Amino acid sequence: MPELRKDPITRRWVIIATERAARPTDFPPGEPLQNHSAGCPFCEGQEGRTPPEIAAVRRPGSAPNSPGWEVRVVANKFPALRIEGTAQVAVDGLFETMGGLGAHEVIIETPQHGLHPATMLPAQLRTALWMYRERYRDLDRDDRFKYLLLFRNHGRPAGASLSHPHSQLIALPIVPKRATEELEGAQAYFAREGCCVYCDILKQEAEERFRVVWENDEFLSFAPFAAWCPFECWVVPKRHEASFGGLGDDQIAALADIMHQTLGRLYQCLNNPPYNYIIHTAPYDTKVGHFYHWHIEIIPRLSQVAGFEWGSGFYINTVPPEDAARYLREVVFPAPATQTASTD
Amino acid sequence: MPELRKDPITRRWVIIATERAARPTDFPPGEPLQNHSAGCPFCEGQEGRTPPEIAAVRRPGSAPNSPGWEVRVVANKFPALRIEGTAQVAVDGLFETMGGLGAHEVIIETPQHGLHPATMLPAQLRTALWMYRERYRDLDRDDRFKYLLLFRNHGRPAGASLSHPHSQLIALPIVPKRATEELEGAQAYFAREGCCVYCDILKQEAEERFRVVWENDEFLSFAPFAAWCPFECWVVPKRHEASFGGLGDDQIAALADIMHQTLGRLYQCLNNPPYNYIIHTAPYDTKVGHFYHWHIEIIPRLSQVAGFEWGSGFYINTVPPEDAARYLREVVFPAPATQTASTD
Repeated sequence: MPELRKDPITRRWVIIATERAARPTDFPPGEPLQNHSAGCPFCEGQEGRTPPEIAAVRRPGSAPNSPGWEVRVVANKFPALRIEGTAQVAVDGLFETMGGLGAHEVIIETPQHGLHPATMLPAQLRTALWMYRERYRDLDRDDRFKYLLLFRNHGRPAGASLSHPHSQLIALPIVPKRATEELEGAQAYFAREGCCVYCDILKQEAEERFRVVWENDEFLSFAPFAAWCPFECWVVPKRHEASFGGLGDDQIAALADIMHQTLGRLYQCLNNPPYNYIIHTAPYDTKVGHFYHWHIEIIPRLSQVAGFEWGSGFYINTVPPEDAARYLREVVFPAPATQTASTD
Repeated sequence: MPELRKDPITRRWVIIATERAARPTDFPPGEPLQNHSAGCPFCEGQEGRTPPEIAAVRRPGSAPNSPGWEVRVVANKFPALRIEGTAQVAVDGLFETMGGLGAHEVIIETPQHGLHPATMLPAQLRTALWMYRERYRDLDRDDRFKYLLLFRNHGRPAGASLSHPHSQLIALPIVPKRATEELEGAQAYFAREGCCVYCDILKQEAEERFRVVWENDEFLSFAPFAAWCPFECWVVPKRHEASFGGLGDDQIAALADIMHQTLGRLYQCLNNPPYNYIIHTAPYDTKVGHFYHWHIEIIPRLSQVAGFEWGSGFYINTVPPEDAARYLREVVFPAPATQTASTD
C-alpha cells in the first residue's frame, strides 16, 4: 500500500510508493566523465576565456588569471542578475517589479576537468568548500543582498551546460520562497516545542538509523522521511547554527568527508547520476539563530515528473527513503579501483 | 537588464531575463505525433487491456468495455493511491504518515491515437472537458476526499508514458501544498482589498492586453506577469467561481474553444512541445467561494532547470511573458493544413 508522509518542517505531503518501489538499476545512468575537453573554458590554461577572477586559491607566486590555481571564482558570463543593478521597486497596478540587482558567480572547484566530488582528493574538496564559505562571508558585506543561494548542477539533466566541476552562487536582493517556507515552518515548530526542528530530526534519525547514509563527528547525512524524489539526501551539521557563514574552520574537513561519502555513494550506486545540491541557509542579517539550522539538500535527477509536481506542489516518490538509505549504505565506496585517488 | 517580478498571489519572486531572451526556435521541438500504435491499450478495440471502465460517453447500444465510445474513464493500472485505503494517521516521533487512500483515474479523451487538443474537433474536446467535470462532481460525493487534482501530461519530458490523448485525476485525502499557498495568498488579498485577486488580475490583463493570448466571452488566456517558465499560460474563467465543479454547461463550449486556441498556438509556435496542465480548484467542502477562483495553468516543458528551481523555490524564466504572448498571438492557427479538422 502506498502511503502519504508529511514533511515536519514545510508540512508538504508526499506520496511514498511502498509497493513496486524502484531499484537503483531502474534509473538510467549518467553520462560518463571525460578527462579532457578541448573547448572547456574552466580548464587550467584557459583562464583568458572567463571573466576576470574574483577570488582564487593559488600557488605562491602565480599571477591572477593564469595557471597555478586550486580553486577559482569568476563572474558568470551569462548572469541571471547583475551587480550594477538596483533593487528599486516599480508597481503597475497589481504587479510589482524589482531591478535585476544581484551577483552571479561560478566557483571552479578544481583545475582537473574529469573529477567528481566522489573522486576528488579530500584536500581539494576542503579547499572548494572553504571557498564557498569565503564567498558567503564576502557577499554578506554588501547590505543590498538579503540571501545567498549556493548550488551545484551536475550533469545535463540537472541543468549543467559545462561538465568541468563547478558550483554557482546567486546573491539576491530578496529571500526565495522555499527559504521563507522553511523559516516559517521552523519558527512555528520552535514556538510550539521550544526547540529547533532540525536538531530534533537529527536526534530521531541518529537514533532510528533507518534513513542514515553516513555519519561523522560533525555531520549526519540521511534520506529525509518525506523525501520528494528518489534518493534525496540531506547533509545536516550536528552543531546548531543558522547560517552557512558560521561554518567553523574545524568543521570543514568533516563536511568534505560527508559530501565525499554521500555524493560518492550516489555516484557508485546510481552510476554517476545527474544531481543538484543546494545550501539552505538563513537569510543575511536576520534574527533566526535560535530556530533555523543550515544544511545541504541533494536532489538526484532521476525521473521526469518534476513539471507536474512543480505545478501542483504534489510529489510522488517511487523509492522509499529507507530503501534509498540502505542502498547507499550497502554500496562499496570508494570502489576498489578509485581507492587510491581518494586517500589524502 | 534582467528584472525580478513578484507573483501577486503566492508572493513568489522570479527572475525574468529581458535581455538575451530566448525565441521559440531556441527550444527543441517535441516528438511528432503518430497516428497508430500497435501496442496502445487506450486505442479503440483494446478495451480489454485496461481496468474496467468507470464512466464513458458511448454510442447508444454499445456495451461497456467494448468499442463505440467517445471518451472513456478507467482506473490507472499503476495507481499512486488506492481507493481501498484508509486515511488513518500514524505518528512516529516527529513524523506523520497517512494511509495511501485515494483514487487515480485516466480519462481517455478520444479513441483516435494521433490527436492533440490542437487537432481535435471542438465537439470532441467539449465531451472530454464535460467528462472532467462529471468526474470532479462524482468524486465530490465521497467525503473521504479533500481535493481533486486533474492534470494532463503531454510528451515524454512532461511525464507521459503513453502518447494516446489522455488526462489523469488523483483524488486526495489532503490538500496539496501549492493549493494551500494559493488559497492563503487569495485570502490575504481579499482581507486587504475586499475582492478576488484573480478577478482583479483578469481586469488588468484584459485592459493592458500585453500578455493576452486568446479571449472569448467566458474565458481569458494569458501569459502570467510572474511566469515561472517560458510560455507558461493561464486560462481563467471570467465568471467568479471557486470550484471547477461549478463549471456551467453553458461554459463548456467556450472552455473547449480557449483550450483549443491556447494549446493549439503552443503546438504551432513551438512545434508540439511537451507540456503539463493542471486544473487549480478549491478543495472539496470548503468555504472559499468569495476569494478563490478556479483556473487552468499550462506549463510547457522547454528547459531542464526545474531541479534547482524545485529545490530552491527560485525561478529564472528566459522568455518574458509579454514576448511569449506576442509569439502566441501572432502565430497562424489553425495552420492552413489542419483547418478542416478543427471546424465543427
